[in-house]
Amino acid sequence: MKKVNTHALFLGPKSENHEFFKKTLNFLMDEHIHWRRDFQPEDEDMITLRDQHEEDFQKILEKTQKTLFTLSSKLKTASMPWFSLRYQGHMTSDTLMAANLAYMATILYNPNNVAYEGSPATTPLEIDVGKELAQLCGYSPDKAWGHVTADGTIANYEGLWIARNVKSFPLAVKNTPEVEYFVKGYTYFELLNLTVQKILDIVDEVIKEEKKIPGILKKVRSNSVEGKGMERGMLGKLLVPQSKHYSWPKAVDILGIGQENMVNIQVSDNFRMDISDLDTKIENLIKDEKPILGVVAVVGTTEEGAVDEVHEIVKLREKYEKEGVSFYLHVDAAYGGYGRAVFLDEHHTFMELEQLGETLVDRSITETRFADWSEGSHPDWTSGDVHDAYKAMPHADSITIDPHKMGYIPYAAGGIVLRDKRVLNLISYFAAYVFEPDDPDLLGSYIMEGSKPGASAAAVWTAHQVVPLTIDGYGEIIAQSIAGAARFYSSLSEAHPIVVKERKFKVVPLTRPDLNIVDFAFNEVGNTDLAKMNELNENIYAHCSYEKGSAKKGKPVNATDFITSKTTLSQDDYGNAPVTFLGKIGIPRSQWEEVKCVYVLRSCVLTPYLKNIKAYKEYWRMFMDTMKDILELVCAGQ
Amino acid sequence: MKKVNTHALFLGPKSENHEFFKKTLNFLMDEHIHWRRDFQPEDEDMITLRDQHEEDFQKILEKTQKTLFTLSSKLKTASMPWFSLRYQGHMTSDTLMAANLAYMATILYNPNNVAYEGSPATTPLEIDVGKELAQLCGYSPDKAWGHVTADGTIANYEGLWIARNVKSFPLAVKNTPEVEYFVKGYTYFELLNLTVQKILDIVDEVIKEEKKIPGILKKVRSNSVEGKGMERGMLGKLLVPQSKHYSWPKAVDILGIGQENMVNIQVSDNFRMDISDLDTKIENLIKDEKPILGVVAVVGTTEEGAVDEVHEIVKLREKYEKEGVSFYLHVDAAYGGYGRAVFLDEHHTFMELEQLGETLVDRSITETRFADWSEGSHPDWTSGDVHDAYKAMPHADSITIDPHKMGYIPYAAGGIVLRDKRVLNLISYFAAYVFEPDDPDLLGSYIMEGSKPGASAAAVWTAHQVVPLTIDGYGEIIAQSIAGAARFYSSLSEAHPIVVKERKFKVVPLTRPDLNIVDFAFNEVGNTDLAKMNELNENIYAHCSYEKGSAKKGKPVNATDFITSKTTLSQDDYGNAPVTFLGKIGIPRSQWEEVKCVYVLRSCVLTPYLKNIKAYKEYWRMFMDTMKDILELVCAGQ
Repeated sequence: MKKVNTHALFLGPKSENHEFFKKTLNFLMDEHIHWRRDFQPEDEDMITLRDQHEEDFQKILEKTQKTLFTLSSKLKTASMPWFSLRYQGHMTSDTLMAANLAYMATILYNPNNVAYEGSPATTPLEIDVGKELAQLCGYSPDKAWGHVTADGTIANYEGLWIARNVKSFPLAVKNTPEVEYFVKGYTYFELLNLTVQKILDIVDEVIKEEKKIPGILKKVRSNSVEGKGMERGMLGKLLVPQSKHYSWPKAVDILGIGQENMVNIQVSDNFRMDISDLDTKIENLIKDEKPILGVVAVVGTTEEGAVDEVHEIVKLREKYEKEGVSFYLHVDAAYGGYGRAVFLDEHHTFMELEQLGETLVDRSITETRFADWSEGSHPDWTSGDVHDAYKAMPHADSITIDPHKMGYIPYAAGGIVLRDKRVLNLISYFAAYVFEPDDPDLLGSYIMEGSKPGASAAAVWTAHQVVPLTIDGYGEIIAQSIAGAARFYSSLSEAHPIVVKERKFKVVPLTRPDLNIVDFAFNEVGNTDLAKMNELNENIYAHCSYEKGSAKKGKPVNATDFITSKTTLSQDDYGNAPVTFLGKIGIPRSQWEEVKCVYVLRSCVLTPYLKNIKAYKEYWRMFMDTMKDILELVCAGQ
Repeated sequence: MKKVNTHALFLGPKSENHEFFKKTLNFLMDEHIHWRRDFQPEDEDMITLRDQHEEDFQKILEKTQKTLFTLSSKLKTASMPWFSLRYQGHMTSDTLMAANLAYMATILYNPNNVAYEGSPATTPLEIDVGKELAQLCGYSPDKAWGHVTADGTIANYEGLWIARNVKSFPLAVKNTPEVEYFVKGYTYFELLNLTVQKILDIVDEVIKEEKKIPGILKKVRSNSVEGKGMERGMLGKLLVPQSKHYSWPKAVDILGIGQENMVNIQVSDNFRMDISDLDTKIENLIKDEKPILGVVAVVGTTEEGAVDEVHEIVKLREKYEKEGVSFYLHVDAAYGGYGRAVFLDEHHTFMELEQLGETLVDRSITETRFADWSEGSHPDWTSGDVHDAYKAMPHADSITIDPHKMGYIPYAAGGIVLRDKRVLNLISYFAAYVFEPDDPDLLGSYIMEGSKPGASAAAVWTAHQVVPLTIDGYGEIIAQSIAGAARFYSSLSEAHPIVVKERKFKVVPLTRPDLNIVDFAFNEVGNTDLAKMNELNENIYAHCSYEKGSAKKGKPVNATDFITSKTTLSQDDYGNAPVTFLGKIGIPRSQWEEVKCVYVLRSCVLTPYLKNIKAYKEYWRMFMDTMKDILELVCAGQ
């Protein structure tokens, strides 16, 4: 069994690995410096020693230095200490030294992965990364394809772009007399409900016609959404969970689909998509003869870390496919995607629950053997549904997966993988006969973006080399972070109320985390007023977060003992999903109906270090002490 | 007069400034290292010396180092030497030390500018950069707004997104009974042809109604494209020059507008949009009662560096506005945007031609005094039309402007600026009452992207501090690069044919460059066969470019004496714009009609160093020698 020593991966909360970091960085810088000198070494120097002693030369250096030092001061005053256990806020944590160093080294060579000609070194690395991410998601590396994006938002747009163009293709075939016979006999409704695989087979058939009818694919595409533009409501509805990221409403706007064609599916009190609501809504759409453009499942919601039951959605799709209705399935695993490494053994094979259970014990991540799991769920780690959801991911048609989240890579590095690279035939700028996505001359012609930093791809590639995308690498780090989050959840669940001058305040977690995000709130024991409870948590947040104005006053934003983030769950967005939680914390339903939103604190536990029992105890003590201090301040009206 | 000493800005072709670079880098790294230690200094170390001596700790460090050195080797084998004068290929050159160092320093703090909470230090820098770019483009800094994007492609999408949603707003008002009276009396055609300013005034009126009718803006938006989706052809046509970047066809696909609603405007033989063709096409659309969604002008085409005559387009718009027809104007100045600094004096005031002429002489950029310019055009620098085009830029509704092109910033840093920030009301995720684009809690709600690197904004901000966006900074660098390109153009125009064993080869530039891109081709004297000429230039390119397979063979991609890029101008894309050039190089029109495309070499002269006469002479000698060597190889059939 290989284990990844997490101590050696990061610079460390106290810069413990500074010597290695600086030594390696300087070596890489020297490599670049001498590489320049090694290109046509006998060319004359452009900048002489005499030039360097001129007054205005020195002035520019001084100005450069002064500005950089000013920047450094700003960064020191107003950056968040996410490297510390005291920071359990947003989806950020220490980043991998390997990735930071790779980014820094590559930036000096400034490759642009939009075209091979601008990045002979780093385009191949991006292609490799795409294959690695595809394998991580369970796709067949030969059929699948993926690439690095600027962020998860752009990846989501790209997924929807593909879904839209794929869905509109059969109608375009119908409207192109030369190839209409490929879809002969299908009704309009049937054409809009073909499976993605069937549509791609039709694309292949059309491409085969190129020999007889040159330019035929282009012609069919010109009859699709790409050529004609969207037609109001034509492609049907996009079904998304209430817990979706706000990039989805932006996406349906940008793609010309329109907000009214996005249907929200309820989430349950565990903040996963309610599968029975999805089923009902699909059934009703079919009854009304409305096509379904696609379904989006979220693996790791940004606010709660909830994992939608992808396996149940896949089952539903199979059920409806028997009735002749299919839909595009996109998994938004921007946050949770890398978590799939937890379930992959060293051969990249997805582990069944029993093997997983034993592996976690062998690796000292949990202590409970599989025999003691209840109904396939670990009592204090995560549930069997999450395992099944991850297992089903390869059935999705595309997946958003962000290295700059649980890949511990610095910004910006989002990602998308596509199950069947033939979909590129419907978005690529060039015609089918120059189709070369695995060795692209112009990557920009297969993706949404244009110019893109080779440095980002190099950082992800380097990280993947050092940290395998299995339980031997990322799996171990993320399993530890999930274990730390589970521990935090348990402590919160079992915590005694904090007493401040005879007033008692209890803390209640929102729900058992599927991954490593723990939401929680405080309430005064006996309080049944939701507005008051919200105010209390807003107050707590004000004391354990950055202060927007403080940087301007020169006060460090991180001058606090504990830093977290917050989120607001409103009835508009979440329906009544928060009601179960409110019941536990002592707020009656009537209050929910009146106030319609609840404010909770939110900790993304990305660090693997809370797995360490000594560190955890210290953390929990610090957390409760800090909360007590804050509650004292709050009680004193501060 | 302040002059920016370009020798002190870059690491240098021979890493001449390595001492300053490394010293400053190490200081910045130490700043970060000690900053971590200064946060809650008494917290215990997570990683002890004992931990660091464990075997698997050392193994991970070894693996990290080994992988990074492998990456470094790959970069050295397969990166392009754009820092050298021998590289005159793509839009890339040495990047500013200030920007590289700022990027490296900031990456360790890993700020995410999507939300202020994740980037208290760098969100304000991005807002500053937006204002600086707005000022550079001549916009009023109070009314305008801008931000850094992942690239120019995304910026173009964002511009078109805004154009589309703005144009669809009046119809939405008409379809919202509560506010319909704001557009009473307008016909359908009139509603689709209102000026952007008029539309934004209506938006303001609607927002004022919020007090009486809460949520009214949201309701109107729900009746616009955002809510209903696109309706085939509804918003009319987008007019783009034939020379547009390929992000535009992608944009009309993605935005749901459809390729058939993109109308190509002819370019002249100088590769600028043919204004009379634009005029005719607008007139015909009006005759057919087809609305005009927008016009895109390009300032710095990617292939030729041509600058569309924005001033003429603005005049046309004024003319048609008198007839009640207006359109959205987007300037795609992804490449040329920073060139506007050439025309700004130290107070950011746009210089008239005479002042510009004298300034260029004073700064030794050119030698020809204004009195000797012919009809407002410099005989060997650039033309008065270019001056006028830049002057008219502030009349555009939005402008794409990429720091990672002529801003000498490493990838990725694109940018967009908007003339009137009120347009954000039609794309922002949050409602009007939380409108705070100048101090955003959630920048992601005003832009297309989500997570975005604070490091990129910090790099641009730092560069702008060191190099002012006027003739005192970027203006000087870019004016020098234009002067270098002009010199290259002149040399090419006047060059004697190269003689190889009694065969003569002449070189002819495509057109006089508006900026700093010089396209040119060789032809054997006497040859009238276009296919043969294309083959010759393909051959030359193969000898002065990277070789795709060479990196795999371990051979450096840059093992050549001169590196350039190439482009293909086809009749499909360019109409007959290349015919004038073909005449000069000895290819008859009949050949063009047969072959329908011409292959030319393309040099983006971003370096300021070709302004230096000594360096230029050396460059020209090297260029001609290399071409002669290559032609000898080609003649020998290699």
